[in-house]
Amino acid sequence: MADAVTPRDDDYAQWYQDVVRNGQLAENSPARGCMIIKPNGMALWENMRDQLDQMFKDTGHENFYFPLFIPERFLEREAEHVEGFAKECAVVTHSRLKTDEEGDLIPDPESELGENYIVRPTSETLIWDTYSKWIQSYRDLPLLYNQWANVVRWEMRTRLFLRTAEFLWQEGHTAHATKDAAVDEAERMLDVYETFAEEYMAMPVRKGRKSERERFPGAVNTYCIEALMQDGKALQAGTSHFLGQNFAKAFDCTFTDENNEETHVWATSWGVSTRLIGALIMTHSDDQGLVLPPKLAPHQVVIVPIYFDDEQEGDVLPVCEHMQEELEDRGIRVKMDDDQTESPGWRFTEHELRGVPVRLALGPRDLGNDVVEVARRDTQEKETVPQDGVVDHVEDLLDDVQQNLYDQAQERQETYTHVVDDYDAFKEVINEEGGFVWAHWDGTEETEARIQEETSATIRLIPFDRDEDDPGEDMVTGEPSEGRVLFAQAY
Amino acid sequence: MADAVTPRDDDYAQWYQDVVRNGQLAENSPARGCMIIKPNGMALWENMRDQLDQMFKDTGHENFYFPLFIPERFLEREAEHVEGFAKECAVVTHSRLKTDEEGDLIPDPESELGENYIVRPTSETLIWDTYSKWIQSYRDLPLLYNQWANVVRWEMRTRLFLRTAEFLWQEGHTAHATKDAAVDEAERMLDVYETFAEEYMAMPVRKGRKSERERFPGAVNTYCIEALMQDGKALQAGTSHFLGQNFAKAFDCTFTDENNEETHVWATSWGVSTRLIGALIMTHSDDQGLVLPPKLAPHQVVIVPIYFDDEQEGDVLPVCEHMQEELEDRGIRVKMDDDQTESPGWRFTEHELRGVPVRLALGPRDLGNDVVEVARRDTQEKETVPQDGVVDHVEDLLDDVQQNLYDQAQERQETYTHVVDDYDAFKEVINEEGGFVWAHWDGTEETEARIQEETSATIRLIPFDRDEDDPGEDMVTGEPSEGRVLFAQAY
Repeated sequence: MADAVTPRDDDYAQWYQDVVRNGQLAENSPARGCMIIKPNGMALWENMRDQLDQMFKDTGHENFYFPLFIPERFLEREAEHVEGFAKECAVVTHSRLKTDEEGDLIPDPESELGENYIVRPTSETLIWDTYSKWIQSYRDLPLLYNQWANVVRWEMRTRLFLRTAEFLWQEGHTAHATKDAAVDEAERMLDVYETFAEEYMAMPVRKGRKSERERFPGAVNTYCIEALMQDGKALQAGTSHFLGQNFAKAFDCTFTDENNEETHVWATSWGVSTRLIGALIMTHSDDQGLVLPPKLAPHQVVIVPIYFDDEQEGDVLPVCEHMQEELEDRGIRVKMDDDQTESPGWRFTEHELRGVPVRLALGPRDLGNDVVEVARRDTQEKETVPQDGVVDHVEDLLDDVQQNLYDQAQERQETYTHVVDDYDAFKEVINEEGGFVWAHWDGTEETEARIQEETSATIRLIPFDRDEDDPGEDMVTGEPSEGRVLFAQAY
Repeated sequence: MADAVTPRDDDYAQWYQDVVRNGQLAENSPARGCMIIKPNGMALWENMRDQLDQMFKDTGHENFYFPLFIPERFLEREAEHVEGFAKECAVVTHSRLKTDEEGDLIPDPESELGENYIVRPTSETLIWDTYSKWIQSYRDLPLLYNQWANVVRWEMRTRLFLRTAEFLWQEGHTAHATKDAAVDEAERMLDVYETFAEEYMAMPVRKGRKSERERFPGAVNTYCIEALMQDGKALQAGTSHFLGQNFAKAFDCTFTDENNEETHVWATSWGVSTRLIGALIMTHSDDQGLVLPPKLAPHQVVIVPIYFDDEQEGDVLPVCEHMQEELEDRGIRVKMDDDQTESPGWRFTEHELRGVPVRLALGPRDLGNDVVEVARRDTQEKETVPQDGVVDHVEDLLDDVQQNLYDQAQERQETYTHVVDDYDAFKEVINEEGGFVWAHWDGTEETEARIQEETSATIRLIPFDRDEDDPGEDMVTGEPSEGRVLFAQAY
């Protein structure tokens, strides 16, 4: 039996760990900072991946795969990029191990590499070096490519899914003939992320662009979606970067345009990672464990047959199997849990902890009454439903659960979004309640840094469309502000 | 326009490179020995992956994901394993880069790791360390898991897909309560590989087990499928290992059995990689470039509309689009190539080089006659087909192409399989004709090594069922042989 889940109010960080562990999602590994993604976690990630992949293909992208290793000299080519990543990268320096005189395994000094490789923290450099060979003319553009890959950013303080040294992600890398085409692409992919977060993860997000301080190293502009977690902290759930011509210039990637002039190529990159699983957990889960939205749950329905002897088994099991078939015919992902070494109660709890959206239970008494017990994970409500309508009922219920999870999260986001004008009020809200805070900012990095130092809050985003906002005065300095920006403490 | 393909007979190695390049499958990268898998190659790999993944799930397996990095000390735990992999692994020794006094980027000496990590060449060690925590009782068994991952084995001489430092693969890792259960699993997964190779890749294979010399480091027995390439060399296309209790002992992984006794767990592992793409190329492709079996081809059909003015476009294009819709309704993967910046001839050649199994072309004259030109890639035959039956025709044709590719390869394998009793005859066959050679072997590593040294041929497999074979005498030493084994030069 799984361990109990610590209530959120007692210890939120422990609650998160308990949900991950009891949900059978992941665990820490002996490779420091790297996680083991367990089958339930991997099935969840595969559902997320497959859905996103379809959305990328529907917007004209194809997948490719670039190497894990980036030659050191490539990283140096874009100044901000190397500054951003040099301090947290795994460096490969040798290609062989040998046994030393004391019998210990050591890197063979003779295998020292002439040039070191770093394990990719992201692949812009290697990809733009190659794009400079692939692109000659405007007719080669746009290039609309993506890769699913593992990346490494050395982290000392890690938390499963939220911050790990190795994580899984996708990185889109596109090349365009004009600035407008690249900006459109970056915005289009942010919209894809927003749609995925809201319609599939049932997680409402805010969209906008980052301040210069929070930008991706090497980007002209970073667009983002931000979600609000249950503890009042924000989580950056996806980013899309307009890279301008920075990487094209660093890697000398030019093309001949329609007027026969040589121009640098315009670029975007965009990515989401297994961090989204952390966001999903902290958006929907409760003190009973993991809660998953039906559209992404590895199993949408679990069926628990209940019987205590062979005769009952002969009655109960065929009815359960028939339900399973009918549900699967509708494309619903069903698990039959007929593990008779565990009690029905144990199995109920197990699937609650795993976040299965709907549970059907059927025992001898239900059989006599031609009913099934239907329990939904989100509200934990149970009801008794006639057997002959159960498939339609479950199909509707899955839609209800998906919608209810979104509505709950949306309501919470609204409740915990504040508008403040005064720095004292800002500090009070940030420290006591948390949540999103709209406030005026004078646009300087100094003020931004000061606010972070004093409150741990950062600018999560600057809204795209500030026309509706009245200009105002910075809550800290009183200097003019072009409009409110969104602050929060963040993961 | 793509470059020409060197004929196989002129220069087989160059032919292979030309097919890979013109097929837009992959290219070399600046990270030595690592390849860039291009969109056409990646789409092919994704089709292979999705099919295999379904077959793994149908046999009861789930996916998980283990870290990229393996602590050095883990590798040491299994003696043969470390012996096998220590000489070709990427070693991570630092976690940060810094700029030195001369402005060069170097590994920051202060970031030197207390314990080095190696980039996984395979994951048995990390996984079995974890299994020792996951497994307590016989009720925890079996564990039937797989992962899709990148791995690194440092190689100095690389060839795209066939031998690269980084490659993509899957590695299954299962744990069982009994020896028989583990052996059954290893055999079952070999059968899955055989089915995949023959039914999807249209590539006939031979099944058997490896000699001790060719075994996976740490395995008790390695089972394999071997295919014969067009140049008469064999290629190991998949392996499944019965690991006995070796890794369980190295990582102290025991369980309490039904009699309450503590026993070491029995293990298997099994894998196939992007190497299969190399096998696919060398099984079917020809002097016109890549040939792909319909079941795995990224696009099964390409439609090339032909017109020279707007009026013709208005006539031709809607008919082509209608065909595309009808084909896609049958689940056929179709590409419409309406690129009017290239001539029809150029587009024909381009899709030939990319191995698209069936091409449909339709121009103004075909329209008047209510026909479509249908060309099959394998035989390069063209025919004129009435428009109203074309969808049924194409569906049948795809089956025909799939079957014909298998039949051709099967016929070639039979033609180039020899049975010899005499070492001189053996040498002559191996050197002049190549192919598979059945010959008697005395079972010693010495003889095996001598044959390899003198002929470059190795024992590809020992058949599972040797009862039918008469015992005989080793062709080299004259010592007793229990039965014939299969020799070939190999990739």
